[in-house]
Amino acid sequence: MSSTISPLAPKIVPDMPPVPGVGFTTAAAGIRYQGRTDVLVMSFVPGTTVAGVTTRSLCPSAPVEWCREVLKKGKARALVVNSGNANAFTGKTGRESTRLTAQIAAAALLCKSSEVLLASTGVIGEPLDATKFDGVLTEAAGRLIDWAWIDAARAIMTTDTFPKLATAQVLLGDVPVTINGIAKGAGMIAPDMATMLSFVFTDAPIAADVLQKLLSKGVKNTFNAVTIDGDTSTSDTLLLFATGVAKSRGAPVIKDAADPRLTAFRRALEDLLADLAEQVARDGEGARKLLRIQVNGAVSKKSARRIAMSIANSPLVKTAVAGEDANWGRVVMAVGKAGEPADRDLLSISFGDIRVAHDGARDPDYDEAAVSAYMKNDVVDLTVDLGLGRGSDRVLTCDLTKEYVTINGDYRS
Amino acid sequence: MSSTISPLAPKIVPDMPPVPGVGFTTAAAGIRYQGRTDVLVMSFVPGTTVAGVTTRSLCPSAPVEWCREVLKKGKARALVVNSGNANAFTGKTGRESTRLTAQIAAAALLCKSSEVLLASTGVIGEPLDATKFDGVLTEAAGRLIDWAWIDAARAIMTTDTFPKLATAQVLLGDVPVTINGIAKGAGMIAPDMATMLSFVFTDAPIAADVLQKLLSKGVKNTFNAVTIDGDTSTSDTLLLFATGVAKSRGAPVIKDAADPRLTAFRRALEDLLADLAEQVARDGEGARKLLRIQVNGAVSKKSARRIAMSIANSPLVKTAVAGEDANWGRVVMAVGKAGEPADRDLLSISFGDIRVAHDGARDPDYDEAAVSAYMKNDVVDLTVDLGLGRGSDRVLTCDLTKEYVTINGDYRS
Repeated sequence: MSSTISPLAPKIVPDMPPVPGVGFTTAAAGIRYQGRTDVLVMSFVPGTTVAGVTTRSLCPSAPVEWCREVLKKGKARALVVNSGNANAFTGKTGRESTRLTAQIAAAALLCKSSEVLLASTGVIGEPLDATKFDGVLTEAAGRLIDWAWIDAARAIMTTDTFPKLATAQVLLGDVPVTINGIAKGAGMIAPDMATMLSFVFTDAPIAADVLQKLLSKGVKNTFNAVTIDGDTSTSDTLLLFATGVAKSRGAPVIKDAADPRLTAFRRALEDLLADLAEQVARDGEGARKLLRIQVNGAVSKKSARRIAMSIANSPLVKTAVAGEDANWGRVVMAVGKAGEPADRDLLSISFGDIRVAHDGARDPDYDEAAVSAYMKNDVVDLTVDLGLGRGSDRVLTCDLTKEYVTINGDYRS
Repeated sequence: MSSTISPLAPKIVPDMPPVPGVGFTTAAAGIRYQGRTDVLVMSFVPGTTVAGVTTRSLCPSAPVEWCREVLKKGKARALVVNSGNANAFTGKTGRESTRLTAQIAAAALLCKSSEVLLASTGVIGEPLDATKFDGVLTEAAGRLIDWAWIDAARAIMTTDTFPKLATAQVLLGDVPVTINGIAKGAGMIAPDMATMLSFVFTDAPIAADVLQKLLSKGVKNTFNAVTIDGDTSTSDTLLLFATGVAKSRGAPVIKDAADPRLTAFRRALEDLLADLAEQVARDGEGARKLLRIQVNGAVSKKSARRIAMSIANSPLVKTAVAGEDANWGRVVMAVGKAGEPADRDLLSISFGDIRVAHDGARDPDYDEAAVSAYMKNDVVDLTVDLGLGRGSDRVLTCDLTKEYVTINGDYRS
């Protein structure tokens, strides 16, 4: 947790209603941080379904491997998240630590350990002492609440400068249901899959396999379209829980992803994921500017995504944005190195509405003063048109500042 | 050119002998910089052969496209290099600018413009006014010399903090020949192909197609194994010139790359390319530490290279090295995101001779104090063993410091 809040933080923290069937609390287990909460304990009513997307890293953390097992059955009764230690690259000890944590949680919350989801974030390679959860989880189980979502979002922060929350009310059939989500960033964020940790909760009654389809699709243009530094965490975890409690109010039970009653819910879920993903980009380590990169005219959406990511991950583009320099030459460089079809002489580049390059050269009408003024904005829109086809995509990132180096050059010690 | 020389600069500048058949001089054309030389003009005797490797960027600069044409014939009489403007993404104007520059050089040096090689480095997207070369090249042609190589290396610098030179004497058959090389870095450096600009000269009589084979092979483990920031320039150019003048002293004319008389020359050339490439890494923008990444035990050399590059381009690894933090957790992360075969539980990681991780977890004998002391070195060796196969490779990079952000956040304006 940084003492300086990102200037890109949303001005308003949403007012989060309870999600029927979800209780939670936070605790301080002293895993790494002192004087702050570092554990989030969540309890779900019986019948809660769960879906998840986890990191594509070939060296995943122990909790990621644990979740993958639990997700196979799609049933959830509890979630335990800790910050301060990622329990990643901890070998056999790490696996034992996850098993013990799940057992402690199961005993405290009166459920099976195979229905406990786990997530850890923080330092890699340090053994996580699960016994630290022992009294803490039992004590926490006695004071579950359903309203202080901001505390939940705070408990999972590491180098984040603000808690990330989003909420939506939507009709399922003709019954209103709630979707609440929390997330944490803020470095080591690149797609494959997503950001580090995000958890979304609804009282809608949706079968686990349908939830999984909704989530897998929903992540593509949201969390997977955000990159801070191109570094993919070993711990990336996005979980979606559905308690099904709205069924008692007449909400239909959804067992088929093609069910037309799901349309509004699907859209609301995607909007909520997009909102959380953008908050992650807005809290990129050291970020002073949000950079939205739109690539049009590529040969395919996939090609557009790769080119957008090549731009978004270019240190030279990111430092130029930090310096408020509309250095489109570096954008050309990043397009050129992406390895995707591109024709220099068809390329157009705009910052905001100002087209700075066109047909492979500087735009003759390009007004340096206007673009310099534009670059002072907090949010910078960069549009690249390749002029080749109809593939387009959008990626979010932030600038690369000295603060990023400060944060990451002095994080562990 | 920075006012502060990289602390990683070589302590000794080599004493460069003349290369018979090569004359050169530098000039100040005022292209971008004031009060310094920004043009290097080189003249070669008739019969000089040339080979080259250029950027794999799909948006190459106009001089790169020009060189590719000249290289098809493999004959060189002149080389004109300017710093301050890359003549990249300058459209039709850029192409005309290269043609005009070559014509001016050909008139000044009394050769065909189709035998003039060109290279430009500096800002992208600004038109390069070739008429600036007009009087300058004619005047320069009247004062060619063969000894002040350090001036040649200085004239091509942009954000470099020191000139980069290397020299070797080697026997071709039983006749000693000379190889001299110069290079410039220092940002926007990633493989595909190489660094920005490097030029190598020999008096050995070697046919153009043989030179090309030597160079294409030589670049793989030298310039192509260096990355500063993962950003590939639109202008990367490495040229190798052979005047053939040593023939008059009895050196054999080499027309076959398999000629056994080439063995020593080939080795000396690779060593010289490696030397120049390391100097480029040592002058990475803002670099305070040289990071040598050795990956062993991969399934193939190609896989080892990709994993080494994933580590070398990771902002989190590079900032950790800047912070003198042996943060091997981030190394695990970078291995995991490379997408190459890796088994977390077989992974070993060492800094210098100190093994910090073994069999997928922290090494039990790992001494934090010893590794902290090691990280204070200027040169940091990081070794990753995957334990899977026999593929190994080495890549050079530097740390990511606040100075990198300063240099690149305020370069153009």
